[in-house]
Amino acid sequence: MISGLTKLDQGSITSPSGFTAGSTFVGLKTYAEDKLDLGILMSVSPCSVAGFYTLNQLKSHSVTLDQERTINGRAQALIVNSGIANACVGHQGYIDASHITEKVSEHLGLDKDDVLICSTGLIGVELPVSLIKAGIDCIVQKEDGGHDLARAIITTDTRTKEIAFSFKHEEKTITIGGVCKGSGMIHPNMATMLAFITTDATISPGLLKTMANKSVDQSFNMITIDGDSSTNDTVLVFANGESGCPEILEESPDQSLLQAALDQVCTFLAKEIVRDGEGANKIIEVKVEGANSREEARSGAITIASSTLVKTAIHGNDPNWGRIVAALGRSKCHIIEEKIALYINNICIMEAGIPTPFPRDSVVAIMSGAEVAIRLNLNLGSETATAWGCNLSEEYVTFNSAYTT
Amino acid sequence: MISGLTKLDQGSITSPSGFTAGSTFVGLKTYAEDKLDLGILMSVSPCSVAGFYTLNQLKSHSVTLDQERTINGRAQALIVNSGIANACVGHQGYIDASHITEKVSEHLGLDKDDVLICSTGLIGVELPVSLIKAGIDCIVQKEDGGHDLARAIITTDTRTKEIAFSFKHEEKTITIGGVCKGSGMIHPNMATMLAFITTDATISPGLLKTMANKSVDQSFNMITIDGDSSTNDTVLVFANGESGCPEILEESPDQSLLQAALDQVCTFLAKEIVRDGEGANKIIEVKVEGANSREEARSGAITIASSTLVKTAIHGNDPNWGRIVAALGRSKCHIIEEKIALYINNICIMEAGIPTPFPRDSVVAIMSGAEVAIRLNLNLGSETATAWGCNLSEEYVTFNSAYTT
Repeated sequence: MISGLTKLDQGSITSPSGFTAGSTFVGLKTYAEDKLDLGILMSVSPCSVAGFYTLNQLKSHSVTLDQERTINGRAQALIVNSGIANACVGHQGYIDASHITEKVSEHLGLDKDDVLICSTGLIGVELPVSLIKAGIDCIVQKEDGGHDLARAIITTDTRTKEIAFSFKHEEKTITIGGVCKGSGMIHPNMATMLAFITTDATISPGLLKTMANKSVDQSFNMITIDGDSSTNDTVLVFANGESGCPEILEESPDQSLLQAALDQVCTFLAKEIVRDGEGANKIIEVKVEGANSREEARSGAITIASSTLVKTAIHGNDPNWGRIVAALGRSKCHIIEEKIALYINNICIMEAGIPTPFPRDSVVAIMSGAEVAIRLNLNLGSETATAWGCNLSEEYVTFNSAYTT
Repeated sequence: MISGLTKLDQGSITSPSGFTAGSTFVGLKTYAEDKLDLGILMSVSPCSVAGFYTLNQLKSHSVTLDQERTINGRAQALIVNSGIANACVGHQGYIDASHITEKVSEHLGLDKDDVLICSTGLIGVELPVSLIKAGIDCIVQKEDGGHDLARAIITTDTRTKEIAFSFKHEEKTITIGGVCKGSGMIHPNMATMLAFITTDATISPGLLKTMANKSVDQSFNMITIDGDSSTNDTVLVFANGESGCPEILEESPDQSLLQAALDQVCTFLAKEIVRDGEGANKIIEVKVEGANSREEARSGAITIASSTLVKTAIHGNDPNWGRIVAALGRSKCHIIEEKIALYINNICIMEAGIPTPFPRDSVVAIMSGAEVAIRLNLNLGSETATAWGCNLSEEYVTFNSAYTT
């Protein structure tokens, strides 16, 4: 934990001042145990907002609408539904997203352009607009509504994923909360990863975007479940200034603290997604050190964490250095074979590009835990990157092939 | 079948005139049922040769040596071992490869620089050079030795993979044969795909390289088992001119026939590798039509064929169009959602970017066969590409995680 940050008990996205949330169910998520499927997050005042969206060319119309509406860096509310992704439905998807946000703006008394929308679930199915509109009328905003919203956004997740931190800033307290769901395209025809982060700090949209980009890049962009990216992946960061603290300015000590808090929230949530990957029971952390550039280190780390062969080896508690370095070798990370050192849970497996006589049984034993740490030192430069993935199990295959469209 | 080409009964790489092969076993492949593990392919006269090698930065020293020796476009013999990959063993691997080829050159009375070497098997293990040298002394070259060499190169393959075609050229017969093994990094710490093609056509090294490059690019470079590329992947094409036919010249009708024959051999062998993928019982053909460029079409096809989610869906006979178009959307292939048409085994599943009401039960039934054909028309341009992959089964995971290093 970074010094100065306090983790809140039962933290959520409504932990920061001035944020409320409400949830209900309208019947979009028939396959799930938890029927909550529609939620609204709202701030008492307009927020600086930063949005990060899927790079897939095939996008949900909910994403398209948010991309347009966050260009100005301002938003005040968000409606989110689970069960249906609003993707691959033609232009009607855009019309539906517009109508739904319009209804929210009337319901909450906000400007329509300040309302965003996120959807997750089946693709190729239209949103039942009148059902959703009726649902909106039932939603009551609550100061402790964050936990319900965490339930309303999950699809195949086995649990909700939330956290909040606070820190002191000039005698006042700044709080930051986050929630997320699902990972990659982990469910048949399902989208996706959604993450929402709220803070009561005062910060300009420009600086928020820069800082959030840094956090997202080393957390949500460095996790992988099955390599497939979805139509709906979205991260939204809201800052409403309701802490009453002075504005966070560039290169101030407060900026460092807020950055650290953002990093913590994003990394926690991203790792939670991996931990809860379908059929997965292990998180794999891959750290590439000593690379020539950060981009190269990132490519090496994510390629190893995504490798089917590495993922199956970890599933079998196998310190299979051959698969690890072969995956590294096909990445965009420059290597010199004779310089590579490899460690699994800090035990040296390979040095100077040649396997060492490591204590096999100890390594197998240590790998049977819930966290496996792969660390490579390329001994070329000083750049580092970390990626997270999960084991590939028979259950994943069964789950993903047993489903019928 | 292209008109003019005749498929030979029991064809092999020794079907073309002037090629002989011999095989033996020296104990490198203890884990396999078939113990043959060392073979030599030889031509009575020096050949034009074209070599294609793994792009992995981590390379077997056998690959490094061949890369050097095929620069001049000339070779006369090849020694190949299975069981040990001669990779990740430091500089000793290069010394060993040199010594072994030197021994072969003495044994056969050839120039050392005309002898190539391929290895496949465990990485991180040194080749037992004196065992191999003793084995070389036992090898007898035979005109019908191709089938034994096909056995000597396999590792986890469940069967040998060979073919030969012939065609008439100015009253004489030109023959082309091919053999291959394994695929991607389909076995723990195992490398790899090896393919050898022989022909008795007379052709310059330059034209042979151009033509073989075209064939390799649309066959071996368009297959995927698990996305991992290995330290040892190699394709070698030898042409010795022993048919006595006039030289094949650029833009002649004979060039077209030889190209067609090369294409057939490479495509057959590449698809055989996919069919024999670990735990796989279905071949998936992905054809992307109507793309803006061939490179884009290739990216789209190979991304779909590699997608874990597509591979598990096919395993479950699930016409899961969502996963297919989402994989396309994250490829480097430009798409316009509203223009995409998708067919599975020629049944239209999606048109104008929206799913059609297709006969689900018929599609599921047709997908339970051994070949599933996915065809996408992007309706943007006129370029096309085809890739091949296989289903991802529980058996693959079990096999690849149960192994211990």
